[in-house]
Amino acid sequence: MLYFQQMLGTAVFAITGVLAIHKVGVDVFGAVVLGIITAIGGGTIRDLLLDQPIFWIADFNYIWVGGGAALLAFFLTKRFQQRYRLLLYLDGFAAALFGLVATEKVLGLQLAAPFAVMMGVLTSIGGGIARDVLAGRTSLLMSREIYATPILLGCILYVLLRDVFGSIQIAGWLALIFTSSLRFLAIYKELQMPAILSTSQG
Amino acid sequence: MLYFQQMLGTAVFAITGVLAIHKVGVDVFGAVVLGIITAIGGGTIRDLLLDQPIFWIADFNYIWVGGGAALLAFFLTKRFQQRYRLLLYLDGFAAALFGLVATEKVLGLQLAAPFAVMMGVLTSIGGGIARDVLAGRTSLLMSREIYATPILLGCILYVLLRDVFGSIQIAGWLALIFTSSLRFLAIYKELQMPAILSTSQG
Amino acid sequence: MLYFQQMLGTAVFAITGVLAIHKVGVDVFGAVVLGIITAIGGGTIRDLLLDQPIFWIADFNYIWVGGGAALLAFFLTKRFQQRYRLLLYLDGFAAALFGLVATEKVLGLQLAAPFAVMMGVLTSIGGGIARDVLAGRTSLLMSREIYATPILLGCILYVLLRDVFGSIQIAGWLALIFTSSLRFLAIYKELQMPAILSTSQG
Repeated sequence: MLYFQQMLGTAVFAITGVLAIHKVGVDVFGAVVLGIITAIGGGTIRDLLLDQPIFWIADFNYIWVGGGAALLAFFLTKRFQQRYRLLLYLDGFAAALFGLVATEKVLGLQLAAPFAVMMGVLTSIGGGIARDVLAGRTSLLMSREIYATPILLGCILYVLLRDVFGSIQIAGWLALIFTSSLRFLAIYKELQMPAILSTSQG
Repeated sequence: MLYFQQMLGTAVFAITGVLAIHKVGVDVFGAVVLGIITAIGGGTIRDLLLDQPIFWIADFNYIWVGGGAALLAFFLTKRFQQRYRLLLYLDGFAAALFGLVATEKVLGLQLAAPFAVMMGVLTSIGGGIARDVLAGRTSLLMSREIYATPILLGCILYVLLRDVFGSIQIAGWLALIFTSSLRFLAIYKELQMPAILSTSQG
Repeated sequence: MLYFQQMLGTAVFAITGVLAIHKVGVDVFGAVVLGIITAIGGGTIRDLLLDQPIFWIADFNYIWVGGGAALLAFFLTKRFQQRYRLLLYLDGFAAALFGLVATEKVLGLQLAAPFAVMMGVLTSIGGGIARDVLAGRTSLLMSREIYATPILLGCILYVLLRDVFGSIQIAGWLALIFTSSLRFLAIYKELQMPAILSTSQG
C-alpha cells in the first residue's frame, strides 16, 4: 500500500516537474531527465549523505514510473495543465509522504531525531530544487511560497507523536494529515511567508 | 590504448569546457576548475551513485591531464577557437567513448542493462551540465541541440550488440562508430530536435 | 581549541552566506538552509568524494551553530551589515582554516599531496559556490575576486612546510598566517586577478 502510494508520488512529482519547466523550452530528452530528477533527486541526495544504497538502484521501478509519467506529461501537457490544481494538491500530498517516509527511514538507522527531520525535508524538496537549478529557474528556496515549512513542521510533529504513541502507524497518519492539510491550506489560500519572515524582494 | 583514448577525451572535454565559458568572463583559476569539472564531472557523479571509488582519486592523471589542457585552452584560446569544428568532432567522439566505457563498467558490476545505459549517458553529459550550472549558463538539457540522444541510442545499441555477439570488442567498436557518426551528422548538418519533440521556446 | 575555531568559522560562513543572498529576496527558511549550506557544503562534498562519514552527521553541532548563526543573520541583518568588513576578514580566516584542516585530514588518510590540496580548496570554497548556484547568483568561480587563489597557495605551502619541519603545528600556523594575510591583503586593497589571467568580461 505504501509502495503504491510512493510510486504514485513519484509519478506526480515527475509530472509537476515537467509542467514546471514546460514554458522554458525543452526537448523530450531534457523533459524526461528533469522529470525524473524532480521525482528522485531528494531521495538520492539523502541516500548519498547517509552512505546507503541509492533507493532507485535497488528498485528501478522508480525510474520507469518517473520517466513514464514525465513522457506522458511532455506529450499531454495541455491535458495535465487543465488539471493543474488537482496536481498541485497531489504534489503536496506526495511531498508530505516522501518527507515522513524518509524521516522514519533515518530514525530506523538509529540516527538522531533532528537529523531525521533534516533528511525528511531534504528528501521532500531536494528534487524540485535540483530541477530548478538544472533548468536555470528560481528555486523555491528563493520564493515566499509556503512549501517547505509544512513539511518541516510535519516531520517534527511525526518525531514527537512517534514518541508519544509508540506507534509508527498512528504517528504517520496524524503527521500526514497535518502536513498535507497545512500545504493544502497554503495552496487554497495562496498563502505566502509573512513579510517579517522574508527579506525585501528585488 | 583505451587508456590513451580516455586521456585524450579528458583533455578534449577540458578544452571545450574552457572554450564554452570563455565569453562569460572568468579568471584562470575558474577556467581550470570548470575545465576539470567538464572533464571528470559525469564520471564522478556516476561513481558516487554506484558507491565506487572515484576514478580520478585512484588515478590522479585525469586531473593533471584535464587541468593541463584547461590551462592551455585558457592561454591559447584563439588557437583553439580556430580549430573549433575539429574540437567539436573530437568532443563528440570523446562523449561517445565515455558513455560506452561507463556502460560496460556498470554491466561489469552485474547491474541491470537499463541502469547501465542511464549511467553511460550520465557519465557522458554530466560534466558539461555541471559546468553550465556552475557557470550560470543554459545547460544542454534546455537546448534542442542533438547531443545526448546519440549517446542514449548508442549505449542501448551497445547493450544489444554485446548480447548478440558475445564480444565486448565487436559491440564496442560498432556502437562507437554508430554513436560518433550520429553526433558527427548532428554537428555537420546542425540538426536540432524536431519541433514535435520540443516545447515552444521563449 | 581547534574545535572552537571551526565552530566559529562555521558561524561566520553561515552569517556571510545569509548576507550574500539577503538582497535577492528570501524567506527565513531559505536563508537558514542557504546559510547552513554555505557553512557545511564544501566539507560535505569532500566527505562524499572521500567516501568518509559526513562530518556533520557525526557531530550535529555544526548544523546547530550554522543554523543558529544564519537565523541571527536573518533577523539582525542590519547589525551584521554594519560590521561587514570585520565579517569579511573573519570569513577569510575561516576559509583559510577550513582549507588547511581539510588538507591535513586528507593527508592523514594517506592520500597524495596534490589530492589533499585539491580537497582543501574544495572544502574552503565549495559551500559558497553551492549557495550561489542554489540562489541563482554568479558564483565566485566566475568573478575576478581573489578568494580561492590564497587558499590554493596556502594549502600547497602547508604540504611543503609539513615536510620541511616534520610538524603539523608549525606548518599549520605558518600556512594559516600566510593564507589569511594574502586574503586580508586582497580584501584591504580590493585586489582583482590581473587582466592577463582573466578573459574579457561581458
